[in-house]
Amino acid sequence: MKDPKKSIVIEAVSPTVDGGRYPVKREVGDLFEVQADIFKEGHDHLLAFLKFRPWNADAWQETPMRYVDNDRWGGAFRLAENTRYVFTIEAVTDVFRSWLADFDKRVGADQDVRSDLLEGAQHLRAAAGRASGGVRQSLERYAARFTAADQAAAVAAAREPALAALMDGTLDRTDATWAREFEVVVDRERARFAAWYEFFPRSGQTPGKHATFRDAEFQLRRAAAMGFDVVYLPPIHPIGRAHRKGRNNALVAKPGEPGSPWAIGGPEGGHTAVHPDLGTIEDFDRFVETARSLGLEVALDFAIQCSPDHPYVREHPEWFFHRPDGTIKYAENPPKKYQDVYPVNFYGSDPEPLWKEMRRILDFWIAHGVRAFRVDNPHTKPVRFWEWLVREIQNEHPDIVFLAEAFTRPKMMKVLAKAGFSQSYTYFTWRNEKRELAEYLTEITTPPVSDHFRGNLWPNTPDILHETLQLGGHPAFKMRLVLAATLSSLYGIYSGYELCENVPREPGSEEYLDSEKYEIKARDWNAPGNLVGFITRVNTIRRAHPALQRMTTLEFFPSTDDAVVWYAKITPERDDVVFVAASLDVTRTRESLVDVPIDRLGLRADEPYVMHELLSDQTWEWRGPRGYVKLDPAVDPAQIFHLRRRA
Amino acid sequence: MKDPKKSIVIEAVSPTVDGGRYPVKREVGDLFEVQADIFKEGHDHLLAFLKFRPWNADAWQETPMRYVDNDRWGGAFRLAENTRYVFTIEAVTDVFRSWLADFDKRVGADQDVRSDLLEGAQHLRAAAGRASGGVRQSLERYAARFTAADQAAAVAAAREPALAALMDGTLDRTDATWAREFEVVVDRERARFAAWYEFFPRSGQTPGKHATFRDAEFQLRRAAAMGFDVVYLPPIHPIGRAHRKGRNNALVAKPGEPGSPWAIGGPEGGHTAVHPDLGTIEDFDRFVETARSLGLEVALDFAIQCSPDHPYVREHPEWFFHRPDGTIKYAENPPKKYQDVYPVNFYGSDPEPLWKEMRRILDFWIAHGVRAFRVDNPHTKPVRFWEWLVREIQNEHPDIVFLAEAFTRPKMMKVLAKAGFSQSYTYFTWRNEKRELAEYLTEITTPPVSDHFRGNLWPNTPDILHETLQLGGHPAFKMRLVLAATLSSLYGIYSGYELCENVPREPGSEEYLDSEKYEIKARDWNAPGNLVGFITRVNTIRRAHPALQRMTTLEFFPSTDDAVVWYAKITPERDDVVFVAASLDVTRTRESLVDVPIDRLGLRADEPYVMHELLSDQTWEWRGPRGYVKLDPAVDPAQIFHLRRRA
Repeated sequence: MKDPKKSIVIEAVSPTVDGGRYPVKREVGDLFEVQADIFKEGHDHLLAFLKFRPWNADAWQETPMRYVDNDRWGGAFRLAENTRYVFTIEAVTDVFRSWLADFDKRVGADQDVRSDLLEGAQHLRAAAGRASGGVRQSLERYAARFTAADQAAAVAAAREPALAALMDGTLDRTDATWAREFEVVVDRERARFAAWYEFFPRSGQTPGKHATFRDAEFQLRRAAAMGFDVVYLPPIHPIGRAHRKGRNNALVAKPGEPGSPWAIGGPEGGHTAVHPDLGTIEDFDRFVETARSLGLEVALDFAIQCSPDHPYVREHPEWFFHRPDGTIKYAENPPKKYQDVYPVNFYGSDPEPLWKEMRRILDFWIAHGVRAFRVDNPHTKPVRFWEWLVREIQNEHPDIVFLAEAFTRPKMMKVLAKAGFSQSYTYFTWRNEKRELAEYLTEITTPPVSDHFRGNLWPNTPDILHETLQLGGHPAFKMRLVLAATLSSLYGIYSGYELCENVPREPGSEEYLDSEKYEIKARDWNAPGNLVGFITRVNTIRRAHPALQRMTTLEFFPSTDDAVVWYAKITPERDDVVFVAASLDVTRTRESLVDVPIDRLGLRADEPYVMHELLSDQTWEWRGPRGYVKLDPAVDPAQIFHLRRRA
Repeated sequence: MKDPKKSIVIEAVSPTVDGGRYPVKREVGDLFEVQADIFKEGHDHLLAFLKFRPWNADAWQETPMRYVDNDRWGGAFRLAENTRYVFTIEAVTDVFRSWLADFDKRVGADQDVRSDLLEGAQHLRAAAGRASGGVRQSLERYAARFTAADQAAAVAAAREPALAALMDGTLDRTDATWAREFEVVVDRERARFAAWYEFFPRSGQTPGKHATFRDAEFQLRRAAAMGFDVVYLPPIHPIGRAHRKGRNNALVAKPGEPGSPWAIGGPEGGHTAVHPDLGTIEDFDRFVETARSLGLEVALDFAIQCSPDHPYVREHPEWFFHRPDGTIKYAENPPKKYQDVYPVNFYGSDPEPLWKEMRRILDFWIAHGVRAFRVDNPHTKPVRFWEWLVREIQNEHPDIVFLAEAFTRPKMMKVLAKAGFSQSYTYFTWRNEKRELAEYLTEITTPPVSDHFRGNLWPNTPDILHETLQLGGHPAFKMRLVLAATLSSLYGIYSGYELCENVPREPGSEEYLDSEKYEIKARDWNAPGNLVGFITRVNTIRRAHPALQRMTTLEFFPSTDDAVVWYAKITPERDDVVFVAASLDVTRTRESLVDVPIDRLGLRADEPYVMHELLSDQTWEWRGPRGYVKLDPAVDPAQIFHLRRRA
């Protein structure tokens, strides 16, 4: 029963994630638009303020909210900083305007308003008491005019805009109602717009020879030249000897075989050590610096698992699962066994040392210039751990980006994103039909999912070579690249993609033959038929087009051919309009009529517009709500059009 | 970082209102079905339990939840009591089945499972430690078989259903994850299914003579004979003299004019007193008892406002708004003035005495047998007050029903329902077109609105005589009655409806001429053309058909004529199927083809079915997905069909 005047209802605040349980995600520079239902018993006029502050700041900033319709209010503020903001809403009765509205009606009905003027004067004097100097004097003068004998003059005074401005400036918020606090994580732009390139730094230019970070600078130059923004390295740590896997995941490695980088840890060290064959930590620092000078950043793999030779096994046996026979459990997905890897036990009685050590690992690499982590299998560790870890890290380093490699059930993928992961792998690889592509990509690029989930689309990874690529070859590689690079503002490829490597270990398998996970590769990057130029072109187009740099600008439109997907990326201001046509059938030429929403683009039915196909640099003139595309897999299994009005 | 094993995610619990901020509403006897997303990192098997208890009980009851699909789980319990239940979800790892699933895979792959059996035996011994007697011994015997030399026998033992049952019975829930607690208010059935009849008890059979409660027993018999369940009385308290309104809301009452019952309070008392001309409190008790004997209950008006003569004005001047000139503010909706009524000030520094007094008023009438209150203008008092009041009352008297008379903006109407009101007036009166009827009624009878809001549909009230009735006369009264009585399981009429009273104070006004609010009426209930028989028939049909007694069974289906609305009420079990056709055009006969969802009703395309029109008792045989209706306003502007399979 306390605070009887705090009776304003504030509900249905939007955007929020699970009613405020988790933060919303946005990026620096965005205008953050908040709406809420705000109303009160009776007929008072209300004022509402959108309040916000970085989580570690004490003082609220605020911006007024405006009435939209049907008790809905809206306000917005610019997300200027890479931080986590807290936001809420403060709503208060506008006592003066409530009084004025009734007063106006009474005056309009020629009623006696002497008593109302006395009441108004009371409000003015109360406001004067909250003010000082000239404002105070002005308000007191107005109050005196209210109670003077000349009622017509008093009415005129009450209606002066200058008075309303004075009353606004002395608003009493003692009895304001506050909503609960919500959060919005504001990441840097790279969290939303980036092209990732994954490569194994140990694979160099000499067959069978373990490359060093110095050698791998060649890869950085290649990635930069192709227009990538982030290079992601599988684990760079010492690799265990015990139960080391051989070529093609053989149970026993032959002498000299390097083992899987995910069997982390050896006598040389664990998660904060560098594999000696790659070089030293100083070599790594130089590698990061070279990357930076090329406009690239380095993302590391964060895989919480250990080889039997990892120092933790000796130092912290309590961090592992022990069988009754005394052995430590290795990783399994029965009946598959991964004897070279021990999973980490998150269910010990005191998780604090383990959690803090995980944080220490990240802090170590952050101190060495790493700003992004691709997290291996986060869905096998407690969600609460990730929520804690990401928050802890981002409290200190709000620029750190976490990519969740969780290929698992949809709700777990989403809750990991809610709990803090900046980006997530997706089902894109397994979405190869027209309808499922439209449904899935629409789902993850529109609210509520897009408020917490940023899909990073990968046509391949070292673990996933989809049948579409195995069977479709070169045209399929081009088509899937264009889809990944334009459906989302985040995409990535694993190296070898540009060479259209597509031989599976066996028919029906999604694993690569001679997987790079178990051996050192040396590739001829200039092999005939390579996609280097094509990829470079696509990345150049992405960098030139703001519509492709945003996550939530995607919309599918009808096309007559079932194998032709047709979608647009349009900036909210409609100042950049990109259409993409892609043929899912790479066996023959497809033709399709495609719909263009000319009304929404502000084009008249008879108005010609320019469709500039950016991959081929060809230009057509279209007119009206329907166009025509022809996709020849040998030439252009996908097309990217920039729509322009005619000059 | 505490409780590291409590890592199960429980989210998207349904049904909830605003994520659990407010209770869900149901009625006694309902099966309450709860779903939630429940999942955990890794691949463990989970168990989940739906827990529930009356709010004032300590012990949880529970029922197991079952896996539905895509990490969605469901469970249900019967709402046996008229109380507020608390419910939540407890989820726990099924350690044994998780172990068994992996074990089975290993056995299937012919792997060495000795170590796994040791681990299994550990689980069994731990379970034995939680058990006693025979169960303990059985588990210890199983554990011994696990570790015996004969591995085949051990494998067989592990797979015995009897073992799984023993393990289920000794499940360790120490590390279970609990969801937050939610609430469901379980009202008695009358909160959902009732026909209300409003009459002024002071209006009797003699023109100009104030009737008594004894006289009004005649009205009870009429209401019961027509098949109503609840009689609702405007305020029965003493009426103020000061500024009493006269006939047709005249500013000054003539001598002998009774005044508005909503100008509550006089020298004879306030909200807990009975108007002396109606009789004594004992007369009221007898009236309530007579109603009960007729199968009726009495609903009182609860209007928190006072005449200038109310005892509160003298005893609690702090409960009113004071003008600077010393006068107390009367009610206004500028420029309209209600000088005979003082609004109550809920914004005093200490609301507790006022809130408690309001509760005392309700407790007083509850002690006199009142079980339902129609609350006047709740939207002009703080929502938090209602939330407190309804909860306080229902904690003691869960059978009390509150009807919110809030004809205001949609979000305020909804939040009052969320905050506790059992039923709500609606916009039904102003929904007279086909599309708007379908949209509005669908909105309020389906989730999320139907989870907290029960619409009570009134074709008229003492304040609202809609143009449809003014212009449409007799057929419009029949049509709107059938709509109200079949679109919702709750409806009501204000007396005079059965006489088709439809003269407005002036053209364009929704107010009655010679409004009963300001004068005593005497009516000829047997006047020619009365709808008494028709209303009786409609109420009889409602009582015979379970589909009409539920709120959420409504579905609209297509009809070819724009003036013909066509909808069904179908029980979830499809054992009662009612269709309604109503013509919104009462000027001429309308014919329409109407769709019948025969597939969902389990009817073959060529299968004939019986359409029994219940108002006329005529029967047709229809076949296939389309029927034909003809609505002659002079005969049947609306029809109610019971669909039956042929014997």
